[in-house]
Amino acid sequence: MALNKAPYKGTQDFFPAQMRLRNYVFDKMSEISEHFAYEPYDGPLLEEVELYMAKSGEELINDQIYSFIDRGDRKVAIRPEMTPTVARMAAQVHREVTKPFRWYAIPNLMRYEKPQKGRLREFWQYNADIFGAPEGLGEIEILQLAVGIMKGLGATHEHFEILLNDRRLVDNIFQKLFCLSPEEAKKLYKVADKVKKIDEAAIKKMTALIITDDKKAELFYQYLKLDNFTDLKMFLQQNDLMADSQDFLTFVNRLEKFALTTYVKFDPSIVRGLDYYTGVVFEIFDKHPENRRAIAGGGAYANLLQIFNEPALPGVGFGLGLVTLTDFLTTHKLLPDLVKASVDVLMAYISPAAEQECFMLAQKIRSFGISTELMFGETKPKKAFTQAEKKHYRFIVLMGDEEMNKNEVQIKNLETREQQNVSIQDMEKITRIFKGN
Amino acid sequence: MALNKAPYKGTQDFFPAQMRLRNYVFDKMSEISEHFAYEPYDGPLLEEVELYMAKSGEELINDQIYSFIDRGDRKVAIRPEMTPTVARMAAQVHREVTKPFRWYAIPNLMRYEKPQKGRLREFWQYNADIFGAPEGLGEIEILQLAVGIMKGLGATHEHFEILLNDRRLVDNIFQKLFCLSPEEAKKLYKVADKVKKIDEAAIKKMTALIITDDKKAELFYQYLKLDNFTDLKMFLQQNDLMADSQDFLTFVNRLEKFALTTYVKFDPSIVRGLDYYTGVVFEIFDKHPENRRAIAGGGAYANLLQIFNEPALPGVGFGLGLVTLTDFLTTHKLLPDLVKASVDVLMAYISPAAEQECFMLAQKIRSFGISTELMFGETKPKKAFTQAEKKHYRFIVLMGDEEMNKNEVQIKNLETREQQNVSIQDMEKITRIFKGN
Repeated sequence: MALNKAPYKGTQDFFPAQMRLRNYVFDKMSEISEHFAYEPYDGPLLEEVELYMAKSGEELINDQIYSFIDRGDRKVAIRPEMTPTVARMAAQVHREVTKPFRWYAIPNLMRYEKPQKGRLREFWQYNADIFGAPEGLGEIEILQLAVGIMKGLGATHEHFEILLNDRRLVDNIFQKLFCLSPEEAKKLYKVADKVKKIDEAAIKKMTALIITDDKKAELFYQYLKLDNFTDLKMFLQQNDLMADSQDFLTFVNRLEKFALTTYVKFDPSIVRGLDYYTGVVFEIFDKHPENRRAIAGGGAYANLLQIFNEPALPGVGFGLGLVTLTDFLTTHKLLPDLVKASVDVLMAYISPAAEQECFMLAQKIRSFGISTELMFGETKPKKAFTQAEKKHYRFIVLMGDEEMNKNEVQIKNLETREQQNVSIQDMEKITRIFKGN
Repeated sequence: MALNKAPYKGTQDFFPAQMRLRNYVFDKMSEISEHFAYEPYDGPLLEEVELYMAKSGEELINDQIYSFIDRGDRKVAIRPEMTPTVARMAAQVHREVTKPFRWYAIPNLMRYEKPQKGRLREFWQYNADIFGAPEGLGEIEILQLAVGIMKGLGATHEHFEILLNDRRLVDNIFQKLFCLSPEEAKKLYKVADKVKKIDEAAIKKMTALIITDDKKAELFYQYLKLDNFTDLKMFLQQNDLMADSQDFLTFVNRLEKFALTTYVKFDPSIVRGLDYYTGVVFEIFDKHPENRRAIAGGGAYANLLQIFNEPALPGVGFGLGLVTLTDFLTTHKLLPDLVKASVDVLMAYISPAAEQECFMLAQKIRSFGISTELMFGETKPKKAFTQAEKKHYRFIVLMGDEEMNKNEVQIKNLETREQQNVSIQDMEKITRIFKGN
């Protein structure tokens, strides 16, 4: 029976055109991360399941994780997210390295999800984290970095916005104002998270199960309508929560002073699904009306190192998925044309006798950093030109009997149509022609 | 209970110093592959197990594969090698793309092996393959590419050699000369494979179980002693096998003419463990007496697309693992110093009032492609200089009350010790200083 040629369900084959696109995006991400003095890292593909049990939340563990028992009877999982891994790694070295330390990675992750637009079971996700920054400043830098990457990819505040909230603020409002227990407050997170996805009646029904007092429920609906920092501040003032929200208000003040409010908006529904967040949480949203989706998410987590019995070390980080980002860049026409490979030189031999010289000359040209494709077997010039038209070659190099006898090659510039014969001994001239200097 | 900080058994955490090393090696591999007009691709992390059952061989399936049943009852495996995936992908597109086509990838793979020097359970492996090349020429180019990558990493023929054989040749000798069935010949592969690892007596014992005729066994020992193409040719001549070995002899002739014999040597023990090879097989060996190990392996496979019910399409490829390659580069001192991050600018504020300006200026400087680390919180100049000494910063930028009042920053070149104050409005001058022009 013939085997299936399709990739495993929910995964993707990256053929060269897709892979060039992925490389373009990843190279930009790496470049800009390095501009921010973030250092690269990576962790293993598999982790022991316990690592996720501690702080990632029930949904991830119960429904989404790819876990199995290995041959040594350990329960392991293919990494569904990177934060637990980076926390584990930070726990190993945080005593020795200068703080804050800044790391980024672009791992492949897997979650058992229903494949749909923007979501695959195997996905690539950029991650950046800063550990040990003073209150509020790591958050600012992470937002600057997120903006920097989006801008590096050609996006502006017309294309995207960053919707932001703070778990401490939410907890204050939910627990102090609505008089909920921490467990009840957590249930109310899920209602807030749903506000843009389901209708008002459904929200009220869900809310009624958690907040029984009508006045308090009304306040919750008021909270859900806040959509900017000014109204939020007024709400806090009216409800006597200013003093409890000082850290967040100082942070908002910085956002305003540092010109980040061009990108960053308050959003009461942003709470993030993962258990470990303890402060600022945010998502990058596509502003395009037909593609209103989160393309990145992150936040601050104060206590993740404690699961390794290490002292608390505050971290802030975010993840940015390749699939949603690519959709975003495509929607806004921000991608360069990467369909065709760009090769400098197509070399062909018109006489079988030139095979040896061509193989050796191609190798020499490549050693000067010039990409060279050699056509195999005796070729007619016309066939070489037809092939040259298919891809983005800049030059065509031919060798036939005549050139062989003179120890030369014929070089044609495919843009200017200029053509010349050059001695194959004269590598300086040959490389100068290809490098255009 | 505290969680384990160590990575899962047999896997590796890549902290920034190791990751910079990995990036250095991968970037070189990609760069040189592109010089050879190889295009990047990638496949999924998981494949259905059947893909490996077809052609990878028993050892891989029974002992080394990480397989499990997914939530949809499919038997899947974490990819233990890349060739079946690239064949599956080639099977999808080979009708549409111009042949030959050339692809490379640098995937992470997993095998359930006993962790030891040069071997981890999760490992990164460069792979390059060419499909649809005429007989013998794809093999030549793949060897040129292997040499090109090794040279690109600073290695010469003094550091490594390529040991090569041909399965067709081996089958001819084993089946025609020793009168073995294909199954017996395959068993004899394993004896050949062991010749450098176990002593002569053990080899003879193993051989006796397969070749009962003493004269033929003697011929096999003769074969095992061949260590260059000249002696091999003599052996073939003496045993009347020249006519049957024409393809390989033509290939050897090309190796000689194309100056590849500087690197490539005949080795009778190279047969490769994977079932799918059908022609030339080779391994790159470290020549260092204390590190005599294979750092890469590959070969030609003619029939891999048939498992997808597609017509045969000849392929040639090789894989080069990161761990063994890094050991090789370390042994021969070919690695640059990548322990420290290289950041252009360290910026610090000596007065809390300068925080806003510094955050905004750092962001501006980065947008010109200059890597800039901002020290958080009010800092003393001495502390900034101490930190600057720790990493490879090229410049230090300070802003205190005095500079604030004049709208300036103080910029110090840490190499020349030159120091100057520059207006923060004058981004042209600031970037010119950092770019050194």
